[in-house]
Amino acid sequence: MTGALVIVGGRERKEADNVILQEIARRAHGGRLVLATVASSEPEGYFEAYRPVFQELGITDLVELYVEDREQAHDEAKRALLDGATGVYFTGGDQLRITSQIGDTPLERRIYDLHRQGAVIAGTSAGASVMSDTMLVRGAGAESHRVGDLRMAAGLGLVKDIVIDQHFAERGRIGRLLGAVSQNPRTLGIGIDEDTAIVVEGDAFRVIGSGAVTVVDGHRITHSNIADAAPDRVLSLFDVTLHVLGSGDRFDIANRRPEAADGAASGD
Amino acid sequence: MTGALVIVGGRERKEADNVILQEIARRAHGGRLVLATVASSEPEGYFEAYRPVFQELGITDLVELYVEDREQAHDEAKRALLDGATGVYFTGGDQLRITSQIGDTPLERRIYDLHRQGAVIAGTSAGASVMSDTMLVRGAGAESHRVGDLRMAAGLGLVKDIVIDQHFAERGRIGRLLGAVSQNPRTLGIGIDEDTAIVVEGDAFRVIGSGAVTVVDGHRITHSNIADAAPDRVLSLFDVTLHVLGSGDRFDIANRRPEAADGAASGD
Repeated sequence: MTGALVIVGGRERKEADNVILQEIARRAHGGRLVLATVASSEPEGYFEAYRPVFQELGITDLVELYVEDREQAHDEAKRALLDGATGVYFTGGDQLRITSQIGDTPLERRIYDLHRQGAVIAGTSAGASVMSDTMLVRGAGAESHRVGDLRMAAGLGLVKDIVIDQHFAERGRIGRLLGAVSQNPRTLGIGIDEDTAIVVEGDAFRVIGSGAVTVVDGHRITHSNIADAAPDRVLSLFDVTLHVLGSGDRFDIANRRPEAADGAASGD
Repeated sequence: MTGALVIVGGRERKEADNVILQEIARRAHGGRLVLATVASSEPEGYFEAYRPVFQELGITDLVELYVEDREQAHDEAKRALLDGATGVYFTGGDQLRITSQIGDTPLERRIYDLHRQGAVIAGTSAGASVMSDTMLVRGAGAESHRVGDLRMAAGLGLVKDIVIDQHFAERGRIGRLLGAVSQNPRTLGIGIDEDTAIVVEGDAFRVIGSGAVTVVDGHRITHSNIADAAPDRVLSLFDVTLHVLGSGDRFDIANRRPEAADGAASGD
């Protein structure tokens, strides 16, 4: 059975009482957890920051997976790090570094296999963005979205028809997420705050952590100028449906319906 | 006939080619424009910043209205500044300073009269927030909204059933605007970016300026924890309708429907 995804909005507290790291550790079932620091061009310190916390959470077999360049992603020794792993955790940096280094390599394929076999795949910050089939790479924060002001790229594709943004409220990224959704409203936009995560199982997710998760549903959009306007024009977009979810709230991705923490489903 | 309102998101460019200041000047019809700097406890410099621009735009009779304290708001000499005015422009600072100094005074009543007689009433930043009957006074930016984290107060009430926020995208204020709307979804939330304005005439407005206007419509909200949860809980809110409007787009407040700049109405 396919494993869960734990998708984190960045800056999760590196403490053993943090529900996000607890969730990842719990789902790794005490097996090998691979900390993939590939997103960073300077990965020093990442492993050291996580090791004591995960150790405290019962993960004794924590290993670091890093590749300097694409060639290393074909190394047998690198791939062997993933043998028998029950979890992979992608840390932050640049999402394009992850996909350009390991995309279409044995490492990437091995991670898919692990996921299908039940391993938890987690990612924070850039490691969160990379989960979707099309990922948000760059776009301005703290301003309204301009039509031409967005870079997207192919991600790892562990979840379909979703685009993820992280450090969401903290960096004022609602504008760029609306921009991404307007490009193809089939894509559900999910903005995850810092120290907050979604746990995806099957076609649904649940929110954990201290912040909020903003869901942008473009299904009912009646007007957008994304295809018509000059690149420096402000995005104009009507009839977006927006949900804000806190800890314990759930979301049914297939039916695009939120469900409150208290269990009362929200009818349409 | 009641005059227009020009509600500005702050930091409008102080240049004669700025469409916002042009709009205010045009609607003052070359008559007296009163620059009300009441919102600031240190009003020095405001008048000087605007004077040359408005002069260039044909406003030769620009006067400053400032009150040190509430007593001055009863001065006949202060009130006389408004005699025959064809426009009033509230500058930035603290919206509570405006209402606490001139609320329920002859100055406030004189401004209502002017508005009813056709004068344009404009306001930027704090001067924008103060336009509504209930105004947003304080709330965190750049983070998701916490249930208890909002201060509202009675505003000037020049527009009904609306709550206005300013410096909107720039300060990441979507969270607090959602919070304000969740308190009573009858209230339409309007977030105005810097150097951007809405021109309200009757029951509709049009967007001008370089940024966007975000409209939060809570009519279809199916769930909110605003009344139940502890003050430090994240606001959980389902089924908000959101519109982003750029320059030239219009909004029908009565029917809560946006209309695109190209004239194509967006059906429901």
